Amino acid sequence: LSQRFSCTLPKPSVKDPLFHALDTFESRHVGPTSKEQEYQLQTMGYDKLEEFLNDVIPESVRATKPVKFKGPVGYSEKELEALANEIGRRNRLVKSFIGMGYYNTKLPSVIERNVLENPAWYTQYTPYQAEISQGRLEAMINYQTMIIDLTGLPITNASLLDEGTAAGEAMAMLMNADKKKRKVFLVDSRIFPQTVAVLRTRATGFNIDIRVVDLSVDLINQHSKDAFGIMVQYPAADGAVEDYADLAAAAHAGGMKVSAATDLLALTLLKAPGEWGADVAVGSTQRFGLPMGFGGPHAGFFSCTEEFKRKMPGRLVGLSKDRLGNPAYRLALQTREQHIRREKATSNVCTAQALLANLSVFYAMYHGPEGLKKIANRIVAATTVLRKGLEQAGYRIVNKAHFDTLTVSVPYAADVIASALANGYNLRKIDERHVGISLDECSTYRDLDVLFEVFNVQRSVFEVAKSSGISDFSNASIPQSVRRTSEFLTHPIFSKYHSETEMMRYLHHLQSKDLSLAHAMTPLGSCTMKLNGVTEMKTISNPNFSSLHPYVPTKQTEGYRMLIHDIERDLAAITGFDATSVQPISGASGEYAGLSVIRAYQKSIGEGHRNICLIPVSAHGTNPASAAMAGLKVVPVKCLPNGYLDIEDLKAKASKHADHLAAFMVTYPSTFGVYEPHVKEALEIVHQHGAQVYFDGANMNAMVGYCKPAEIGGDICHFNLHKTFCIPHGGGGPGVGPIACKKHLAPFLPGNPIVKTGGEQAISAVSSAPFGSASILPISWAYIKMMGESGLRGATTAALLNANYMATRLSKHYSILYTNEKNRCAHEFIVDFRSFKKTADVDATDVAKRLQDYSFHAPTLSFPIANTLMVEPTESESLQELDRFCDALISIREEIREIEDGKQPRDNNLLKNAPHPLKDIVSEKWDRPYSRERAVYPVANLKERKFWPAVARLDDPYGDTHLFCTCPPVENAN
Amino acid sequence: LSQRFSCTLPKPSVKDPLFHALDTFESRHVGPTSKEQEYQLQTMGYDKLEEFLNDVIPESVRATKPVKFKGPVGYSEKELEALANEIGRRNRLVKSFIGMGYYNTKLPSVIERNVLENPAWYTQYTPYQAEISQGRLEAMINYQTMIIDLTGLPITNASLLDEGTAAGEAMAMLMNADKKKRKVFLVDSRIFPQTVAVLRTRATGFNIDIRVVDLSVDLINQHSKDAFGIMVQYPAADGAVEDYADLAAAAHAGGMKVSAATDLLALTLLKAPGEWGADVAVGSTQRFGLPMGFGGPHAGFFSCTEEFKRKMPGRLVGLSKDRLGNPAYRLALQTREQHIRREKATSNVCTAQALLANLSVFYAMYHGPEGLKKIANRIVAATTVLRKGLEQAGYRIVNKAHFDTLTVSVPYAADVIASALANGYNLRKIDERHVGISLDECSTYRDLDVLFEVFNVQRSVFEVAKSSGISDFSNASIPQSVRRTSEFLTHPIFSKYHSETEMMRYLHHLQSKDLSLAHAMTPLGSCTMKLNGVTEMKTISNPNFSSLHPYVPTKQTEGYRMLIHDIERDLAAITGFDATSVQPISGASGEYAGLSVIRAYQKSIGEGHRNICLIPVSAHGTNPASAAMAGLKVVPVKCLPNGYLDIEDLKAKASKHADHLAAFMVTYPSTFGVYEPHVKEALEIVHQHGAQVYFDGANMNAMVGYCKPAEIGGDICHFNLHKTFCIPHGGGGPGVGPIACKKHLAPFLPGNPIVKTGGEQAISAVSSAPFGSASILPISWAYIKMMGESGLRGATTAALLNANYMATRLSKHYSILYTNEKNRCAHEFIVDFRSFKKTADVDATDVAKRLQDYSFHAPTLSFPIANTLMVEPTESESLQELDRFCDALISIREEIREIEDGKQPRDNNLLKNAPHPLKDIVSEKWDRPYSRERAVYPVANLKERKFWPAVARLDDPYGDTHLFCTCPPVENAN
Ligand SMILES: Cc1ncc(COP(=O)(O)O)c(C=O)c1O
Ligand SMILES: Cc1ncc(COP(=O)(O)O)c(C=O)c1O
Ligand SMILES: O=C([O-])O
Repeated sequence: LSQRFSCTLPKPSVKDPLFHALDTFESRHVGPTSKEQEYQLQTMGYDKLEEFLNDVIPESVRATKPVKFKGPVGYSEKELEALANEIGRRNRLVKSFIGMGYYNTKLPSVIERNVLENPAWYTQYTPYQAEISQGRLEAMINYQTMIIDLTGLPITNASLLDEGTAAGEAMAMLMNADKKKRKVFLVDSRIFPQTVAVLRTRATGFNIDIRVVDLSVDLINQHSKDAFGIMVQYPAADGAVEDYADLAAAAHAGGMKVSAATDLLALTLLKAPGEWGADVAVGSTQRFGLPMGFGGPHAGFFSCTEEFKRKMPGRLVGLSKDRLGNPAYRLALQTREQHIRREKATSNVCTAQALLANLSVFYAMYHGPEGLKKIANRIVAATTVLRKGLEQAGYRIVNKAHFDTLTVSVPYAADVIASALANGYNLRKIDERHVGISLDECSTYRDLDVLFEVFNVQRSVFEVAKSSGISDFSNASIPQSVRRTSEFLTHPIFSKYHSETEMMRYLHHLQSKDLSLAHAMTPLGSCTMKLNGVTEMKTISNPNFSSLHPYVPTKQTEGYRMLIHDIERDLAAITGFDATSVQPISGASGEYAGLSVIRAYQKSIGEGHRNICLIPVSAHGTNPASAAMAGLKVVPVKCLPNGYLDIEDLKAKASKHADHLAAFMVTYPSTFGVYEPHVKEALEIVHQHGAQVYFDGANMNAMVGYCKPAEIGGDICHFNLHKTFCIPHGGGGPGVGPIACKKHLAPFLPGNPIVKTGGEQAISAVSSAPFGSASILPISWAYIKMMGESGLRGATTAALLNANYMATRLSKHYSILYTNEKNRCAHEFIVDFRSFKKTADVDATDVAKRLQDYSFHAPTLSFPIANTLMVEPTESESLQELDRFCDALISIREEIREIEDGKQPRDNNLLKNAPHPLKDIVSEKWDRPYSRERAVYPVANLKERKFWPAVARLDDPYGDTHLFCTCPPVENAN
Repeated sequence: LSQRFSCTLPKPSVKDPLFHALDTFESRHVGPTSKEQEYQLQTMGYDKLEEFLNDVIPESVRATKPVKFKGPVGYSEKELEALANEIGRRNRLVKSFIGMGYYNTKLPSVIERNVLENPAWYTQYTPYQAEISQGRLEAMINYQTMIIDLTGLPITNASLLDEGTAAGEAMAMLMNADKKKRKVFLVDSRIFPQTVAVLRTRATGFNIDIRVVDLSVDLINQHSKDAFGIMVQYPAADGAVEDYADLAAAAHAGGMKVSAATDLLALTLLKAPGEWGADVAVGSTQRFGLPMGFGGPHAGFFSCTEEFKRKMPGRLVGLSKDRLGNPAYRLALQTREQHIRREKATSNVCTAQALLANLSVFYAMYHGPEGLKKIANRIVAATTVLRKGLEQAGYRIVNKAHFDTLTVSVPYAADVIASALANGYNLRKIDERHVGISLDECSTYRDLDVLFEVFNVQRSVFEVAKSSGISDFSNASIPQSVRRTSEFLTHPIFSKYHSETEMMRYLHHLQSKDLSLAHAMTPLGSCTMKLNGVTEMKTISNPNFSSLHPYVPTKQTEGYRMLIHDIERDLAAITGFDATSVQPISGASGEYAGLSVIRAYQKSIGEGHRNICLIPVSAHGTNPASAAMAGLKVVPVKCLPNGYLDIEDLKAKASKHADHLAAFMVTYPSTFGVYEPHVKEALEIVHQHGAQVYFDGANMNAMVGYCKPAEIGGDICHFNLHKTFCIPHGGGGPGVGPIACKKHLAPFLPGNPIVKTGGEQAISAVSSAPFGSASILPISWAYIKMMGESGLRGATTAALLNANYMATRLSKHYSILYTNEKNRCAHEFIVDFRSFKKTADVDATDVAKRLQDYSFHAPTLSFPIANTLMVEPTESESLQELDRFCDALISIREEIREIEDGKQPRDNNLLKNAPHPLKDIVSEKWDRPYSRERAVYPVANLKERKFWPAVARLDDPYGDTHLFCTCPPVENAN
């Protein structure tokens, strides 16, 4: 397929013998110029790059062969744009009324331009540094308010990955909370098939017995011994809108919990799940303005009763106070890693869908409650006209009541589908005798007109409407018992920003509080906050990519398939693996998928009993959590004082568990930021014990072009496209965590119940959409196509140079942990602040907060070692920015020294009082032992360029003890 | 033509009997909701809207019939997007090597997204309020440095409208400066034809005798008596690169001045005009990243010797100091209106091309001097290969040396053009035996390959290059004598921002200093700073509109022609006129075009002697300036104390000049913001004297849907699409100033020498491109298509309500000038501060500066009355924003009262010291008689949302006496 096309695709000029394009990307993506790189080498005492590389990357882990891509690479920026547009044109745009959780929707242009296409929004990191993240935290609390209002449940989180995984989280949480340790979960048969698939995958790991059944009170009663919960779809997958109050009552009577997968737009008209007895509601915010994008990214939502407040997965934004007593938002009940409960976890969610959640709440704010109801009522009315027309033409509609979906009995479904397609529409083929039609915000009179033709309805749309007494916005077809009577989105913030001007200003106002890559280096170790190039990003604004339903016929997706084929092949080439799946939509999701693949493989060769997973103590919290979710027992492996893996301990543990050893999870370079030279021996040991090696590729930015996980010994690996491959962090997502593996595991790569994908013996789905967050894959694809082999290798070189240059400068002032015997780190390094506790009562948090006064986002705080900062500059930072950051840390060292020397008090100093927001400075009272000027302009260049924290340091304990997770009451608002 | 297409174009759903789209634009564009409008009416004491309107708009000026559009209107936002995309597809994209001042170029994505597609950049106003405009002022001083460096001339302005008008400005300035009052101007025949056309138009008004000749030393010597100057094109239009030093010397010997139309990219390799003796250099910055856009908008540049410093047209940015002694930028040597020298003017330029100038300097900064030279050398090398290939195949190349252009002798030009087109290329047809080919930044090896085929060159591109010893970047073909040896762009700022990350941060940093509509209301009277909706703006990012050369064959422009036809027809429908021209690219340019049309008409009926233009004293400075440029003698007409025109004076002046009366220029509603009820009588008087009425439609925002200039008595009218019709102000342009006229004037609408446009007896061009700034017309077109008749009328209603609501609130605290007998204003009103000079030593400037502390851009300062502010809120501002602004002005009134009451000193108070930037507040020393907090947070909501001025009040006299117009030396930089 891709062969056929690629011969006619635009080629890069890089292979032309003359006149190559000059708008090549590598020099734009990489911060330091080659001259500056020479300077960096000199500073570190090297003459040649090779000498440096030899000191950094152990010979033993170097790739045997350079990366070699199959297709052409080296496109210039404009050439790439032409290529992407051409590939996009090979997707066919057919209007889809397929439904099943994916609907046409209209993202208002003002939100598209000012958020989705605005680096000040999409390059933000997860808001752990609350003082410089108040904008997106406010957006997220608005989001939480929206979910709470619409679902009628009091507790929610700031988004999960998608509807399927949110359902999985619900099931796991309910199981976990069940005091009787019951293991059966009853799922109504009218639930979306992809949700069932994801539930089945999750159930495997947790040993849950899923029963997909026609739920009834009787059936529930029968299961009160063994079932811990039920799940319904509301409205149901067949379109039915039913009152589930009796089911819920029966379940509660049996001590079970009730979960509902639901639809936010329908909930503007339907009684909220919380109002009829649901304990948990989940779903997707997709139809609140998020392009279908061939499956994603969208935000999964999750809400629950108070009972589950402390068991709920994901991140939770809460209102708290700052040091000055002003209201301020923060991530509540968790710090960066703590919320991932490692081996005790039932959830591993880390990167989620913050940007998408925020887009969807802006959509809701722009429309307001009345606007949303209008949209919903218009859909109901149109669906009613469609129903009446079809019924009058003699068709039977299977579902009695409806919101947007009709299940139509037809003689031959295939004929109807074909006829609809010939007229420009995709419908859902349910089975040979049933088709599904789901209308949406974009459905028009003319669409109905054509559908009437397809179904041979003789009367006109208008006649049908008139004769049935249906006007534009009548919701009469919704049964009285499930009609919503409660209000929602009553907070004034949902009624203030309805003009484009007001919305634009609100978005810019929020943005002005948030530090992002548009302002300064954000050197978060293990997060690879590199450039998200505009040429890469532009691909996602192309409707030929963004508007496809994930279940359209394959023929309509030739462009996407080419591109996915390309990126899968390219990722395999980079890593040395044989096969790839792009379905996992975060790093953690990749880990879980990879471990599940390992287990399926082992089962297939009669080794299903293997259930031990060795994980170094230094591993990221998601590793043990993912292992636990895949049904593995986690056994930690020690590390040596120099940060290396304790191979003796590994050997011992491997022998001890030899019979049951399933896998070893390794992060490389390690989370300490070092290339361990003996990693191959370690992995050899694992293999010798018949186990598989799971390779955490989060640190791939130190490897691309130099090392290949497959050659080092990995059997399967995930990489975070949102780290190494330029997908932006979006304030906490989207992310993409594809997995790549060796041949023996390929047959088990995850599938999808609707679209054939994955291997021959595919495990069931790990996320809802067949290709995960398909619409952002072009970002990473574009990066690879523009950089090519040498560009990618150059990026890695620059990342290593940048990190080592900084470490070298800083080592004169701080202790740098875990460098190798040549004093070199990999692409990141750890600065130790532990000694200052004693000498100055200063810890890494104080330094992190003080860095805000220098207009920097702190490096990763206390991971993997408490009271340290892990710095990862990436290749995209310029020499001047590296120096600016080093200067800041060095200046802070002098500030610490003043405390050590007794020149500043230990409890009232520049660090303890940091950050210093405007409110602090402007106040007349100034009783600090340092000047205002020193507080906010500690180095001269800040007078010209400074980013101001919006609030003073957050009061964390206050926030956790006074948990408040919706928009503040109006009297507090200012 | 448009008929044929429109039947297949997407239709709006507004005419469907059911299910109209809900994403309609009117409620997004208009700030106040209908409920809020009711509240506004109540506040002003009205029950019904009609009562209010009756008090505001005189019956006598109301339109007799409502506006009625021919084509469909009422498109929703997404429907409009679909329509625009479809129309765009009807333009055919063929690669153009036509040259003639328009070249393919690559706007780097990082600049496109972060400037061109960023409301924080494009909604800015002209930087008269320097303290909140330091970002774009810095960009403009970079721009000036670029022009000065490249042209080798020490003085420049911050952009003109295009190359043709810049040439016109050069000619006029040189004529004006000529002490001998000579009237002949010698123009080399190898100058672009559109430039000659614009020069001819300008020459008509100034009575200059233009001679288009083959310039030679001899010829120049012959003209030393009668010619004041010469103009050459460098490189010449035929592609020749010649040394003009001898011509320049001859001209100077004859006391003439030398002007050169030139090309910035070529100048990176060629000796600068200032180095071989030019006194003035002009041109277009188009090929520095600005899309060809079917002709514009681009920026015209202009530089000159010190001699002309105070005669130079346009705006000039200079480095000055603020009150605290910090370096700060400002517009030098002028205040808003003063630089337009009214009746003594030789220039009327007001709105120019600030955004485009800034885009082009960002392009230069992103490439740096080395990058630019690479681009230029690559073009020279490719052109050399093309030349060699053609020569080897037996073609004669007319021009000996070349930069990017070859004039090729061919047997039949038409055949070559046709064959090139068949292969996908547009070439220039010079005459029956000559074609022109101009290569550019986007030309590739493959392009040459095809051209070789077209011209039957037998050898391959590579062979030709090899055998001629040409490598990728060889400039050997440029004659030694004109090679550039001097450096340029040596200031470090041109070498700092070469990585995408650094450029992105620089752009965001500059943006952070500038207040725009993304922050707050910018209620500039007479400027109509309304919403620039994203759906409107998205049209300009569409390559199907942005990448067309203005001289492509008509067949390739069907989309554009439809759209232009549409907007011309729609503007005619709105105004009641019969014909429209979109060629003028600013309001002032429209005035000049309109008056020139009037003169041509009068000449055609034997009334060419009419040369008197009556203009009310209240008129905008561009009116008399335009009249003067059109060769009219300006006679001022008085106004009455109530602001109305003094009809008796008009009568008297009209009678006095009856025989020579050419025109009367009227602004309606007047610049005082009132609808004069007797305007029709006044215009009647003018007509009775055989003169024409020129209608200045700058205040059209008060008329659309209610009054039609044609019915009121206008014969011809311009409107500022950048005011009423949503084209953004871009920090001082682009603008578009179409003119509409009655039938009798239609034959004279301006033409173009290459593309047939305008009337049968068209005056020659008023700007370079046939359809002016064609690529931004879709913005206004989209606005009209979405709003429709009722939406446009609704917008006017809201504009009137907003202004009168504010005037009503403020009238309790300030004196409002020039309201009508019902105490009503039109869409804007004037607040008087004159009395405070005496009571508190406060003037309007102090209030304007103090408003910055309240996060507002001041209203129009001291126009049309000194020491006043003219407030125009527009319809797009919400009730809450209007109130916030009123609250600010009311709070300032209290601050003034404290001075009046002696509670604050007259020379050291909140107003005199305003604005208060951060540097002010942070300093330890605080010796003001008010607190820091009061200085910067005078009202509570500022603590939540505040925009900070970057510097303290500018020191204007310092800047003008120490004129410094390039980037500051590095030691001053911070
Ligand atoms: C080493 C490592 N593994 C796994 C993850 C989890 O990835 P994600 O956040 O995409 O789920 C991270 C995230 O930072 C990480 O650093
Ligand atoms: C009344 C009036 N006429 C003419 C103009 C000139 O328009 P432009 O700036 O587009 O040249 C203006 C500009 O503000 C104006 O207010
Ligand atoms: O926890 C992280 O997002 O890496």
